[in-house]
Amino acid sequence: MTDSSPKYVYFFSAQNAEGSAQLKPLLGGKGANLAEMAQLGLPVPPGFTITTEACRAYYKEHQETLWPTLKSEILTHLTELQATTGKTFGTGPDPLLVSVRSGAALSMPGMMDTVLNLGLNDETVVALGEKTQNPRFAFDAYRRLLQMFGNVVLDIPHHDFEHELDAVKTAHNVTQDTDLTVEQLQTVIRHYKEVINRHGHTFPQDPMAQLWAATDAVFGSWNNPRAIAYRQINDMHGLHGTAVNIQTMVFGNRGQTSGTGVAFTRHPSTGEKVFFGEYLLNAQGEDVVAGIRTPQAINTQADPSATQTLESALPEVYAQLDTIQQKLETHYTDMQDIEFTIEDGQLYLLQTRTGKRTAKAMVKIAVDMVSEGLIDQRTALLRLDPHKVNELLHPTFDPSASVTVLGQGLPASPGAAVGQICFDSTEAVSLHEAGHPTILVRVETSPEDISGMHAAAGVLTARGGMTSHAAVVARGMGKCCVSGCTELSIDYAEQRCTLTTKDGTLHTLRKGDWLSLNGSTGEILADKVATIPAQLDDDLMTVLQWADDTRTLRVRTNADTPTDAQTARDFGAEGIGLCRTEHMFFDGDRITHVRAMILADTLTERQQALDLLLPYQQSDFEGIFTAMDGLPVTVRLLDPPLHEFLPQQEAEMKLVAQALGLSLDAVRDRIHALHESNPMLGLRGCRLGVLYPEITTMQVTALMQAALHCQAQGLTVKPEIMVPLVGHGHELALQRQLITDAAQAVFDSKGQTIEYLIGTMIELPRACLTADEIAHHADFFSFGTNDLTQTTLGLSRDDAGRFLPAYQSQGIIERDPFVSLDQSGVGQLVELAVQKGQATNPKLKIGVCGEHGGDPTSIEFFQRQGLRYVSCSPFRVPIARIAAAQAALR
Amino acid sequence: MTDSSPKYVYFFSAQNAEGSAQLKPLLGGKGANLAEMAQLGLPVPPGFTITTEACRAYYKEHQETLWPTLKSEILTHLTELQATTGKTFGTGPDPLLVSVRSGAALSMPGMMDTVLNLGLNDETVVALGEKTQNPRFAFDAYRRLLQMFGNVVLDIPHHDFEHELDAVKTAHNVTQDTDLTVEQLQTVIRHYKEVINRHGHTFPQDPMAQLWAATDAVFGSWNNPRAIAYRQINDMHGLHGTAVNIQTMVFGNRGQTSGTGVAFTRHPSTGEKVFFGEYLLNAQGEDVVAGIRTPQAINTQADPSATQTLESALPEVYAQLDTIQQKLETHYTDMQDIEFTIEDGQLYLLQTRTGKRTAKAMVKIAVDMVSEGLIDQRTALLRLDPHKVNELLHPTFDPSASVTVLGQGLPASPGAAVGQICFDSTEAVSLHEAGHPTILVRVETSPEDISGMHAAAGVLTARGGMTSHAAVVARGMGKCCVSGCTELSIDYAEQRCTLTTKDGTLHTLRKGDWLSLNGSTGEILADKVATIPAQLDDDLMTVLQWADDTRTLRVRTNADTPTDAQTARDFGAEGIGLCRTEHMFFDGDRITHVRAMILADTLTERQQALDLLLPYQQSDFEGIFTAMDGLPVTVRLLDPPLHEFLPQQEAEMKLVAQALGLSLDAVRDRIHALHESNPMLGLRGCRLGVLYPEITTMQVTALMQAALHCQAQGLTVKPEIMVPLVGHGHELALQRQLITDAAQAVFDSKGQTIEYLIGTMIELPRACLTADEIAHHADFFSFGTNDLTQTTLGLSRDDAGRFLPAYQSQGIIERDPFVSLDQSGVGQLVELAVQKGQATNPKLKIGVCGEHGGDPTSIEFFQRQGLRYVSCSPFRVPIARIAAAQAALR
Repeated sequence: MTDSSPKYVYFFSAQNAEGSAQLKPLLGGKGANLAEMAQLGLPVPPGFTITTEACRAYYKEHQETLWPTLKSEILTHLTELQATTGKTFGTGPDPLLVSVRSGAALSMPGMMDTVLNLGLNDETVVALGEKTQNPRFAFDAYRRLLQMFGNVVLDIPHHDFEHELDAVKTAHNVTQDTDLTVEQLQTVIRHYKEVINRHGHTFPQDPMAQLWAATDAVFGSWNNPRAIAYRQINDMHGLHGTAVNIQTMVFGNRGQTSGTGVAFTRHPSTGEKVFFGEYLLNAQGEDVVAGIRTPQAINTQADPSATQTLESALPEVYAQLDTIQQKLETHYTDMQDIEFTIEDGQLYLLQTRTGKRTAKAMVKIAVDMVSEGLIDQRTALLRLDPHKVNELLHPTFDPSASVTVLGQGLPASPGAAVGQICFDSTEAVSLHEAGHPTILVRVETSPEDISGMHAAAGVLTARGGMTSHAAVVARGMGKCCVSGCTELSIDYAEQRCTLTTKDGTLHTLRKGDWLSLNGSTGEILADKVATIPAQLDDDLMTVLQWADDTRTLRVRTNADTPTDAQTARDFGAEGIGLCRTEHMFFDGDRITHVRAMILADTLTERQQALDLLLPYQQSDFEGIFTAMDGLPVTVRLLDPPLHEFLPQQEAEMKLVAQALGLSLDAVRDRIHALHESNPMLGLRGCRLGVLYPEITTMQVTALMQAALHCQAQGLTVKPEIMVPLVGHGHELALQRQLITDAAQAVFDSKGQTIEYLIGTMIELPRACLTADEIAHHADFFSFGTNDLTQTTLGLSRDDAGRFLPAYQSQGIIERDPFVSLDQSGVGQLVELAVQKGQATNPKLKIGVCGEHGGDPTSIEFFQRQGLRYVSCSPFRVPIARIAAAQAALR
Repeated sequence: MTDSSPKYVYFFSAQNAEGSAQLKPLLGGKGANLAEMAQLGLPVPPGFTITTEACRAYYKEHQETLWPTLKSEILTHLTELQATTGKTFGTGPDPLLVSVRSGAALSMPGMMDTVLNLGLNDETVVALGEKTQNPRFAFDAYRRLLQMFGNVVLDIPHHDFEHELDAVKTAHNVTQDTDLTVEQLQTVIRHYKEVINRHGHTFPQDPMAQLWAATDAVFGSWNNPRAIAYRQINDMHGLHGTAVNIQTMVFGNRGQTSGTGVAFTRHPSTGEKVFFGEYLLNAQGEDVVAGIRTPQAINTQADPSATQTLESALPEVYAQLDTIQQKLETHYTDMQDIEFTIEDGQLYLLQTRTGKRTAKAMVKIAVDMVSEGLIDQRTALLRLDPHKVNELLHPTFDPSASVTVLGQGLPASPGAAVGQICFDSTEAVSLHEAGHPTILVRVETSPEDISGMHAAAGVLTARGGMTSHAAVVARGMGKCCVSGCTELSIDYAEQRCTLTTKDGTLHTLRKGDWLSLNGSTGEILADKVATIPAQLDDDLMTVLQWADDTRTLRVRTNADTPTDAQTARDFGAEGIGLCRTEHMFFDGDRITHVRAMILADTLTERQQALDLLLPYQQSDFEGIFTAMDGLPVTVRLLDPPLHEFLPQQEAEMKLVAQALGLSLDAVRDRIHALHESNPMLGLRGCRLGVLYPEITTMQVTALMQAALHCQAQGLTVKPEIMVPLVGHGHELALQRQLITDAAQAVFDSKGQTIEYLIGTMIELPRACLTADEIAHHADFFSFGTNDLTQTTLGLSRDDAGRFLPAYQSQGIIERDPFVSLDQSGVGQLVELAVQKGQATNPKLKIGVCGEHGGDPTSIEFFQRQGLRYVSCSPFRVPIARIAAAQAALR
C-alpha cells in the first residue's frame, strides 16, 4: 500500500480493532460491528475486513479482478492474523481456517455469498484432524468447503453435490450427515472433486488461491441478479458495494460442549423485554438454517415450556451470553440480533446487528426503551418505520398459518382479506348483504365498481398500478387490494380466472372459490387463510402522541363519506384535505340524476337534473361536517370527465335511455360524443365549471346550505372550497366569482353566514409556473401531486404499468413516481409554486392532497418546502403523523 | 380640468392641432390622423377628440357615465370649435352640426357607433334650410339624425325607422329617398319621433343633451358584443378603449358640386402604383356604403373604361386630391386609405389611414417603396404580415365568385379546395386515381387516413382543433383543411352529412355532392367555387431574399417524405428539423410488417418483422437524404403508441389475422391489451425504445446504411438522430448507447463512417426541469412544443376543441395555445430548458420542431430565447423566413 492509495483492509481482534461501528458505510454492517464488539472486549474470532471502497474499486477501476496492491494489503493482514491466532494458513500442525463473508452497509440477508473453512486441503485436513483429535470433524469441514466453494465460487449447482452425498449415504445406509464415518466422508470428498472436474474446474489445493477466488466471488455477488433485485425492492440506493470479512473459523460442531445459535435482546414478535433465542448443540450455523434439527430455546423466559435450554445445558456460557447481550443492547441502545458459536465451551460472538421486528414489537420496544431511559423520544420516533405502522391498522394473516402462494400482484392497499371469488360488483353487493365475504376480481375497476368494492372483503385486479383507481379507492376505504397482477387472466363470460404461478403451474379459479389476499405484500393465497385482527394498542397511541407533540405539519385526510371521515378522525386526522364530491354521485338514484344532467340538451334540462341532485349533495355534506365538527373540510368541486358517469355496456345504456325517456341511439350518440382521446387531459376539473357554471353553483349551494344547517345545530363548520385543475389565474377568478355569488345567495336566503375559504388544487405544471397569478384569487393551494406527476412526466398512471417496471429494472427511475414524489422533477415545480404563491399572498395556506401525502419520504420533502399540511387516505393518517414528526426532527 | 387630472380633449383644425399621428394610442387612429392632417395644413373639418384614456376612466372610475370635469373640458373645446367655424351649436342662423365617431388605436371598421348631424332640432333645421337655401337637404339631415340617434343611442331597431320611411314613400309613390319632398320628409320626421316615443323615449331638442347621449353611446359601444368579438378574433389586446371624435359636419349631398368618396394611394388588390378610388356626386358617405347607387372611379388610371370620373367632373378638386394623396403617402411612407367629402366644390379630408391590401399588394408595395427610396428594407420587412404570405402559396378562391356559405370550421390548413364529397379514405384514393377531385369528410382523421388525405383535394372534419391530426398532417402536405366544424354531423352508414347554417337551416350533403373549402378562413362553401392559382412571384422572392439576409434564426422543415422535403427546399428550408419515421410505416406492405412486429409474441418474431421493415426505411431515408443533399436532416425515432398502427374495425382485424397467420381472437386480444386510457401519456416515444431496443437498432441501422449509401454516391449527408419524449437523463443515455452501437456496427460492416449527431426532443415538463442532466447526453435539443403544451397545460389537443372556444370567449386565454405558444406558461419551461441545457453543454444546438415553429409570434419568442432554428411544415417555411427576419429586427 502506498501513501496515495486508500486503506482497504481493517484488522480486528479482541486485542486490537482498527474499525468501529461508526465505519459502517466503509466496513459494512457486519465488519463494523465485529470491530465494535472487539473494541468492547467481547470474544470475537479475530479477522479483517476488506472495505466497500475496495468493492467499488473492484468494479470501477479494476475490471472485476483483484489487483496487486490490494492483494499485498490482504497478505499483510493475513500475516497479522496468523500471529494473533498462533495458527498458520494452509500449512503446519495447527492450520488457520477462515471464513469469507459479505457484508454491505445495509443488511441484505442471504442475498450475497459466504464461503467457510477456507485453508483446508488434502494436507491440512489431516493436520486439523490430528490437532482437534477429531478427524471426522476435519473431513466433514473439508467436505463442506468443497461444496460451498464449488457452488459459490465455481457456480456449480448445489444439487450436483447433494446428489453425491445422498448416493454415499444410501450406499452405506446412513440417514444423518453426522453419522457418516471418516472413510465415507473421504468417499464424498473424492466424488465432490470429480463433480468439480466434470464442470471443467479443479479444486485449488493452494489456500491462497482459495482465498483470492472466494474474495473475488463475494465481490462479484454484489451484482448478482437477486442482490440487485433485493436492493431495488427495498429502495436501497447509493451504496458502494459489499465489504468482505475474512475471519478465523470457530466450530460449534466439535461436540456436546460446542454449539451455535441466534438470539435477540428482546422478543422480535411481541417486543417484550425478554432475552429470546434458539440454539443447537454440536452444530454449525448452516445446520440451524437448513432446519435438519429443530433448535432449542436458549432459556425458559420466552418459552416456559422449553426443555434442553442453553441455560440448563451450559449455564456458565449462558450467563456469559446473557451479560454480553445486555451489554450490547445498552451499548447500541437498540434491540440486537446476535449470532454466537460455542467451541469447546468457549463462547464467540460472530455478529451483532439491529434486530428485525414486527410492527408491534417496533412500537413496544420504542416505548419501553424510552421509559427505561435507554433512548429519548426523539430517537424513538426517528427509529420507527412509518410504513410498518400500516400493519397495525389492518388485520394480518396469522404468521403460523401455512399458505399456498398462487401469484403476486402489487401491494396496493394493505390488509388481509379472505372471501369467495366474485367477478361482478353488483353480485358482490348481494353476496355481502347475504353475509358472504367476497374477493372482487376484476381486470380493472371503474367508478361503477365503488359499491362492489365497498361490499367486498378485498379487491384483486389484473391491471393498474399502486395508484390505479382500484388502489386509490381501496386505500381510501381501508380495503385490502392487490392490483396489477399481470399473471391473472379473467374470463368474465365463463366466470373464471387463471393464475400462472412462478413455477409455470396454471391455476384455474371459479366464482365462489375461496381466496385470500395479502394487501401488504401483494401475495395471492389459495383458500381461506386464518387472520388476526388489527392491534391499535396503547403503545401505538403513545408514539402517535409523541409524534403529534413533535410535528409541525398538520395531517388531514382524503375522505368522501361520513364513515371514512369518522375513521380518519379516529386515526387522528385534523381535518379533510380532499373530499371528492364525484364519489357521492354514484350511489342509488343519484347516478340517474347525474346522467340526466350530462345528457341534457338544454340548460333548463340540466338545471332540473341539478336541482334533483342538490338535496343528496347537501345531506352528504351534512354528514361529513357532522363527523368533522370543529375541523376544516376541503371540498373539491366536480372533477372527473363526465363520461365516467355514463354506462359502457349496451344493457345499461338501455336502462338509462328508459329512465330518462330517451332513445337508445340518443344515449349512445351522446356517450360517443363525450368520448375523449385523452380524458386525463380533457374536459374535466374546473373546465366543467367554466362550461357549465350551473354545476358549480349547485355544488356550492348544497355545501353552504349544509354548512348553515350544521352550524344552526351547534356544530363548528369550517368549509374550504377547492377548484380543481386550474391552469390560468383567470379560470380561478371566474370560478371564485361563481362561488361567492352562490354562497351569498344562500346567506341572503337563510339570513345567516359562515366563514369559508376558496382555494385551488395545484396539479398542472402551468399552475406551478403561474402560481403568482393564481395566488391572487386563492386563499389556499393544495398540491394534487398525482395529476402533477402525470402531466410533468407525461405519464398516465393507468397506462404506465406496462413500462414502469422496465424503467425501474434498467435504473432509469429509482422509485415509482406515483408512490414517492419525483423530487428532482415534480419537486422543482412544487418548490416554484410555493415560492411564487407566497410571494403574491404571504398568508396563502399550502398543503398537499395527492397520494404522496401518505408517503414518508415525500412528507419529508413537503416539510422542507414549508407546507402547512398533508392529506392522505384514512388508514395512512397514523403513518403520516409519524412521518411528519420524523420530518420535523430531521 | 384641474392640474392633477389628465388632459382628456384635444382640438384640431387647419390652423391648430394639439395632437399628431404619434398620439394614436391616446387619440385613436382616426383622431390622431385628423390632427396630423391638420398639422400638414390639409383641409380637415375642425373638431376635437376625446381620448381613449377618457374611455378607460369612463369604465373604470365613473361607472359608465360622463363626469362633470370631462363635460366641462368638452364644453370648452366646443366653444373653441364655434369660434373657429363661426357657427353656433344648436342655435342661431348658421347652426353648427357635428358628427360623433368612435376611433380606437387599432382599426375596428364598422364595429363601433357613429352619430351624424348632431345639433339639429325643430328650430335649427329651419335655420339650416335657410342658410343653405336647401330646406330639403336640411330636413333630410334631420331625418337621418333622428334615425341614427334612435338606433345608436336609444337602441331602437333600424327596421322600425325603415318601416316608416317605406310607408311614406309608398303612400306618395316615391321610389328614391332623394325624391322625397320637404313636406314628405317632415311627415317622416313626425313618424320617426312617434317611433322614438313608442319605445319610451323622447328625442332631445337640446343639442347638448344630444351630444352627451351620443358621446356616452360611443364609449358604450366599445364593449358591445360584436366589438368584443372583433377584438378577440383579430387578437387585439391591451387597448384602453375608443376615442370619440366630435367634428364639424360637411355635406357631400348639397348638389352636383358636392360629393364623397374613398381612395387608395396605390391599388389595394394588385399593389400597382396608381391612384385608385371611387366616389359619388351629391351623396353622403352612408350612401356609398348602402350601395344604393354605384360609385364611379375617380380616374381612368386604375380603370381605363371608367366614365364620369371625378377627374373629368371636378378637375380642380381632383387635382387638389391627387396632390394631397401624394403628400399623404410620402408623409406616412405607406399606402393610405383616404375618405374625402366635397361640399360645394370645397374638398375636405375626413380620414386617412394605412390601407388594407391583399397579400400580393402587400408584397408588391413593399418592394416598390424600397426601390422608390420611400422606405428601407428594414421597414419593408417589418411591415409584412407573415400570416398573409400564406395566401400567396396556395390557390385562392376567385374573389369575384358568388358563394353560399354552408358552415364554418377552423382554418386548419390554408388553400382553396373544390371536390366531390367522399366519406372514406380508400374511396378517396380510387376517385383520385380515376381523376376525380374529392373533399374527404370525416368525423376526425387517423393515421389510416393519410393516403386518403393525400388523394383528396381538401379535408373537412367535424372534430379536432388547429393542431389535430387532420390539421397537422394537412399543413404538412400543404393540403387545404377545415377542421373542428361543430355543426357538421356525419352519418357514415348513410353516406351523408348535415350542416346547420347560422340561420338554422339544415343542409344535407351526400356522397358525390360538390363542395368547396376555404382553408384560410375555415368557410365551407356550397358547390364548385372558381379558384385562382398560387402566385409565387418575383416580388415575393425579393422580400424573402431580404428576410434571409436579415434573419439569424435558421428555418428548417418538418417533412417525412422526399416530396415534402423537396417542396420545403423549394420554399427555402435549410434542412429537416423533424422527419417522423412513423409516417413511413403506413404505406403498402409496410403496415403488414409493422403489425407483425407489434403482434409478435417473442423477440425473435419481432426481430423478423423488423428485418423486413428495414429495407423500406432505408430506401425512404435515401430519398430524403437525396432531396436534402448538403443540409442537415433530423430523424425522430418511432414515437406514437403502437396501437395507432393496428386496425380498429373487425373486417380489417380479420385481414391482419389472415396475413399474419393468427386467429382473429388473438389479434383482438392483443389490440385490446394495447389499449390505453391516455395514449398521449402512455407507451410511446423513447419508452418504446427502452422496452424494445431492437426497434431503435433497426431504425438506426436503416438510417446509417442509407447515409453511407448516399455518401458513396457523392451526396453530402448530415444525419441527426432525435430521441422523442425523454423525461430522464438516463433514458437518453441508454438510447444513445444503443444508437452509437448500431451506427458503429454499420460503419464496421461497410468500412465507412459518417459524422452524425444525437439529440432529443424536449417535450415534457420534466425534460425542461432536468435539462441540465439530459444535456449531458445530447448534441442538440429540439423543443416539441405541441406535446409540451399538452402536458404543461394538461390539455389534449384532440379533446380541447370542446372547451377552448369557451375559454377564449370568456377571456381566460387570449389565443389558442396550440397555434401560438403560451409564453407565460410553456415559455417559462422553454427558457429554463435553454438555460439549463446550455449550462451543461455550451455547444448544445437548440431548435424547435413543434407547430409553433411556423407561428410568427412564437418565432419572435424563440429568437429571444436564443434558439438556433425553427422547423415548420413546408408551406410555412416562407412565413417563418419573414417572421424570423422580423424577430431579428425587433
